[in-house]
Amino acid sequence: MSAHPRLSLNQATVKHASLLDALDATRAAGIGAVGLWREPVADVGLEKACALVADSGLRVSSLCRGGFFTAPPGPGRTAALAENRRAIEETAALAAAGAPGSAPVLVLVAGGLPGGDRDLAGARERARDAVGALADDARAAGVVLAIEPMHPVFAADRGVVSTLGQALDVAEQFPAEAVGVVVDTYHVWWDPDLPAQVARAGRGRRIASYQLADWVTPLGPDVLVSRGLPGDGHADLAGISALVEAAGYRGDVEVEVFAHALWDADPADVAARTAAAFAASSGVRR
Amino acid sequence: MSAHPRLSLNQATVKHASLLDALDATRAAGIGAVGLWREPVADVGLEKACALVADSGLRVSSLCRGGFFTAPPGPGRTAALAENRRAIEETAALAAAGAPGSAPVLVLVAGGLPGGDRDLAGARERARDAVGALADDARAAGVVLAIEPMHPVFAADRGVVSTLGQALDVAEQFPAEAVGVVVDTYHVWWDPDLPAQVARAGRGRRIASYQLADWVTPLGPDVLVSRGLPGDGHADLAGISALVEAAGYRGDVEVEVFAHALWDADPADVAARTAAAFAASSGVRR
Repeated sequence: MSAHPRLSLNQATVKHASLLDALDATRAAGIGAVGLWREPVADVGLEKACALVADSGLRVSSLCRGGFFTAPPGPGRTAALAENRRAIEETAALAAAGAPGSAPVLVLVAGGLPGGDRDLAGARERARDAVGALADDARAAGVVLAIEPMHPVFAADRGVVSTLGQALDVAEQFPAEAVGVVVDTYHVWWDPDLPAQVARAGRGRRIASYQLADWVTPLGPDVLVSRGLPGDGHADLAGISALVEAAGYRGDVEVEVFAHALWDADPADVAARTAAAFAASSGVRR
Repeated sequence: MSAHPRLSLNQATVKHASLLDALDATRAAGIGAVGLWREPVADVGLEKACALVADSGLRVSSLCRGGFFTAPPGPGRTAALAENRRAIEETAALAAAGAPGSAPVLVLVAGGLPGGDRDLAGARERARDAVGALADDARAAGVVLAIEPMHPVFAADRGVVSTLGQALDVAEQFPAEAVGVVVDTYHVWWDPDLPAQVARAGRGRRIASYQLADWVTPLGPDVLVSRGLPGDGHADLAGISALVEAAGYRGDVEVEVFAHALWDADPADVAARTAAAFAASSGVRR
């Protein structure tokens, strides 16, 4: 059985699986690539994780995630930058362990407003400054920092970078080989400026990752984990995929779905469902 | 006791109160204006509602709400337009019944995607066309249609107009005396383009209504009713008020908070708390 050749299973879709179980489920579903998360990698240690990835024969499409660097100057910011530098090294190692075609991409989520802080513009500036502080490290490691705009529903508590245009405003201050953006349909599907911004990202060769999840209603009690597999919701995924293709992106396409219904299911079953949903509804070309 | 002279209590903040109880609670708190909703007006009938408003001595700052006109051509769209024409007449009558300084403003919420429809751009076009179909009726009645951009979290199921810029793109196709926009802090606080768009709205004299609610976290199980009184959340209300003032808006400022904790409380108490929160955290000039 073989899935769409550009499909990558982001590990968050099978959140409770160990790294080995996630890799096995991905392969069993005929999927050729995987998007990794730092926590399950840390559970086995980086060296062992790289060995497992190499054994799997899978491509690595990204590592989630760095970022969370909106703290004001001080110990919190220093610690966040140090953590991101470790994440950069992990990204390089895991991509090197993956099959040819792996992408040394570190997904960055900016983080929210520090407690009690209402200066959203200030937090956004600090996020930009943090990207600047990490760009040389990324370039030296051959890693692309991929700034992920988060849906505005998360602006207060998770990600102050809210639109693709805003992410590009930051990324374009640095070389394209060091800083790009993530286009995640869940976060950007609503944006009236999306066609223009995806085209802009393509012109600058800034699309470092393309992720799919669908917007389902009614939203569950926790909006963070209310996502759906492609085809289950309201987002025009095929339309967005056409924009991303037209912008020149030819890399792997991750399905990253935060949803309890998937997390509670068997990872192999979720991987198979993901492959079927992707084939039916992603609109991604082979 | 007298509240801030520009404060208006939007009736949604005391949702379960009758029109008379809402008017009484507003006056008892020393608040000089009220934002009305169609449902409690309909509960007593328009004529009686106008008499109650006239008796109250309050200004009317807006009527919520028209809109919900994204249906494709057919009976659904025809019915929606007819409903909006009734709402225009109600707006004119209620504003005429209010104290001097009342504003004949009808708040429009576009509505979401029709069931099974993923063509967000198409729904947005139909919303624009519906505004166009109503603009002459509004002008003839002396009413301003105020397009309210809704937070993108509601793009699928409630309002396909997601940003102030997008609302202005529509409004600017029609005369300013007939079509304007609502700036509601809850819906737009996250927007990196907000300063530019508020200034643009001011230049065109398009700000027909300014509404305050705060963004609180964690979001409750229903994001629609997870709002907070000014000062209870993360939005920089004083900063946004400064933008709106600088843009030339001098009208009443509504506090419109959808929250079970307020709806379950005594309306007079809620009105008093609203006045206190507004005085402390709105940043609105006297």
